[in-house]
Amino acid sequence: MRTQVGIIGAGPAGLLLSHLLHLRGIESVVLEARGREQIESTIRAGVLEQGTTDLLTEAGVGTRMKSEGAQHHGFELAFEGKRRRIDLTGLTGHSITVYAQHEVLKDLVAARIEANGTVLFNVSQTSLHGIDTTTPSIRFHHEGEPHELHCDYVIGCDGSQGVSRNSIPRALRRDYERVYPFGWFGILVEAPPSSHELIYARHERGFALVSTRSPNVQRMYFQCDPKDTVELWSDDRIWAELHARVDSTEGEHVVEGKIFQKNIVGMRSFVSTTMRHGRLFLAGDAAHIVPPTGAKGLNLAVADVRVLTQALDSFYKEGRIDLLDTYSATALKRIWRAEHFSYWMTRMMHRLDDASPFEQQLQIAELEHVTTSRAAATAMAENYVGAVAV
Amino acid sequence: MRTQVGIIGAGPAGLLLSHLLHLRGIESVVLEARGREQIESTIRAGVLEQGTTDLLTEAGVGTRMKSEGAQHHGFELAFEGKRRRIDLTGLTGHSITVYAQHEVLKDLVAARIEANGTVLFNVSQTSLHGIDTTTPSIRFHHEGEPHELHCDYVIGCDGSQGVSRNSIPRALRRDYERVYPFGWFGILVEAPPSSHELIYARHERGFALVSTRSPNVQRMYFQCDPKDTVELWSDDRIWAELHARVDSTEGEHVVEGKIFQKNIVGMRSFVSTTMRHGRLFLAGDAAHIVPPTGAKGLNLAVADVRVLTQALDSFYKEGRIDLLDTYSATALKRIWRAEHFSYWMTRMMHRLDDASPFEQQLQIAELEHVTTSRAAATAMAENYVGAVAV
Repeated sequence: MRTQVGIIGAGPAGLLLSHLLHLRGIESVVLEARGREQIESTIRAGVLEQGTTDLLTEAGVGTRMKSEGAQHHGFELAFEGKRRRIDLTGLTGHSITVYAQHEVLKDLVAARIEANGTVLFNVSQTSLHGIDTTTPSIRFHHEGEPHELHCDYVIGCDGSQGVSRNSIPRALRRDYERVYPFGWFGILVEAPPSSHELIYARHERGFALVSTRSPNVQRMYFQCDPKDTVELWSDDRIWAELHARVDSTEGEHVVEGKIFQKNIVGMRSFVSTTMRHGRLFLAGDAAHIVPPTGAKGLNLAVADVRVLTQALDSFYKEGRIDLLDTYSATALKRIWRAEHFSYWMTRMMHRLDDASPFEQQLQIAELEHVTTSRAAATAMAENYVGAVAV
Repeated sequence: MRTQVGIIGAGPAGLLLSHLLHLRGIESVVLEARGREQIESTIRAGVLEQGTTDLLTEAGVGTRMKSEGAQHHGFELAFEGKRRRIDLTGLTGHSITVYAQHEVLKDLVAARIEANGTVLFNVSQTSLHGIDTTTPSIRFHHEGEPHELHCDYVIGCDGSQGVSRNSIPRALRRDYERVYPFGWFGILVEAPPSSHELIYARHERGFALVSTRSPNVQRMYFQCDPKDTVELWSDDRIWAELHARVDSTEGEHVVEGKIFQKNIVGMRSFVSTTMRHGRLFLAGDAAHIVPPTGAKGLNLAVADVRVLTQALDSFYKEGRIDLLDTYSATALKRIWRAEHFSYWMTRMMHRLDDASPFEQQLQIAELEHVTTSRAAATAMAENYVGAVAV
């Protein structure tokens, strides 16, 4: 088998890259370890920056997002019993779209299939070869048979646990990591929205986030011990915790409903540099992870893909390699910005068991600041909507 | 002895308060444990916010400050071998004045003496009595004799180690503290300025600050081990360290000269609440300490005095006690803002031995942010010049 660009991983990064390359007349093949049903049903949050929705729209996969996604012009910060709004659009001119990541994935898979793109699911034993030569290849098994995909470039979009990153020699990489000593307990609830915008709550009992999925289904999270199991949390205990953390003294409260899914996710920050070795380029979670607090994960993956698409396009159209050479440095500027923002927002909003009473008071001082200083609110809003210079 | 307001401590807070009360026709007596020469020669940094210079000018002690102080419209952030300017005036409309704290003190002492104010130096065995009654008093020894000063109110401006704060019962107070695992090594140098504005440098070897005192005398600091002694640091070693931390790759460098003073200061954050108990009110360092990174210490003391002057004036002129009752809460808003800013700037600029490589990269990401995002730069500048809503 031969193609121009071999892409490992059919997540948002891999599928979007494949589709954008297709629209520019560049061939690719996407290899995915999981099955189609599995990737389409793995529930993930979805706060899309305007740059993300613009690129999805440009790629021709924005129709359902536009009709089913919810445009939000702000969010609420809840602390000390009160709620203060961050007016994203008023402060930055931008808005965000709440549209779940697995819905984005469904749209991308449908678009690739519609365009006769090659996406191979359930591949196994994937390995990279010759990435530091001009003739790299990917070996894998599919439907019981071994295959080798020869290509000009290999793009690793196979997430944090994939094979791509580890194909860059350890001595040439530098990894940065921070594991947080807490997790997020997530629930899906049959209920009307508690608020027409997202609520990020800081409480001495811990963080909580009230998000939405649709007029009838809500997504809520609260800080928990990462070693907790869902069995430890009865519905009653969950509601008591959410009311304690999110309800305001002015009577605003979380609206209860039937909880039909519970899960716990760990939280960490991670950056691997370089993102390029020879003919291998990493994009998305393969190179970096953010805690979900800043809602940056999917948006960063899409930003990587934007840079990479331009670089590959300039190679195939004009024979240029300069944009490929600067890909890692260009992408890392935005990545470090988002890593800092996610870390900052995580530290400000969560109960930190390693924080002194002094530092706990500083969390409140900082929340007062971002909700009273227009400059501080603007800096936060620019980061949240992704409209920040890097 | 009897007066209206008994003030403990002839630092900037106590002397300014005494003088502002005098201008409003309210009598006070200031008691100071040290001698006049000692307080006038204790060298301290001095970055004065516009609100501070305004109040000093209003108090009639601004003449020398205006002629000898240097007005600065920005400062430099040095990191990763480059320098980036924070345009304070362009971003906020405000400037700062570099005028050393002990010069402010000399002006205040002169003004009190000129106005026949009572400032008793070298008092000892100071103790507070009846502060939870309507007839408080201060007992002390002066020139070998015991005295008792009866007054309406006692104001504790006697710094972190004074007797005032500890006169508030421990059970009614809550103290918040953070001691930093590093100190500042300060030098005074006979040399021309290295730059026409202050330089705050972040380097992997540690923080440095290049400040100025006059066209011929410069003040420089660099992060050191708080357990260091000045003997450990030869002039050569000091200059090597300052060059390494501050010089830019574009050839800007620290200008050397004769070092004629060396000292080491520890760094901590501290807030004591409440700032009021009965007839006792705390102001300045007696209630709160900031690390010097944000240049907030003197400005916070002056801000306390502004609030307290208005409260006492409204009591004596109109019999109102509401402003006295809200003094602590009002002052603490600004204090927590400054505590957060000082902590934030300290964490961003210093080598943190407890920080992971990931968090060290975040320092650079944050410095890139405050030097490229106008909103982030404005938020920093507003805090620095003291023009931030609280």
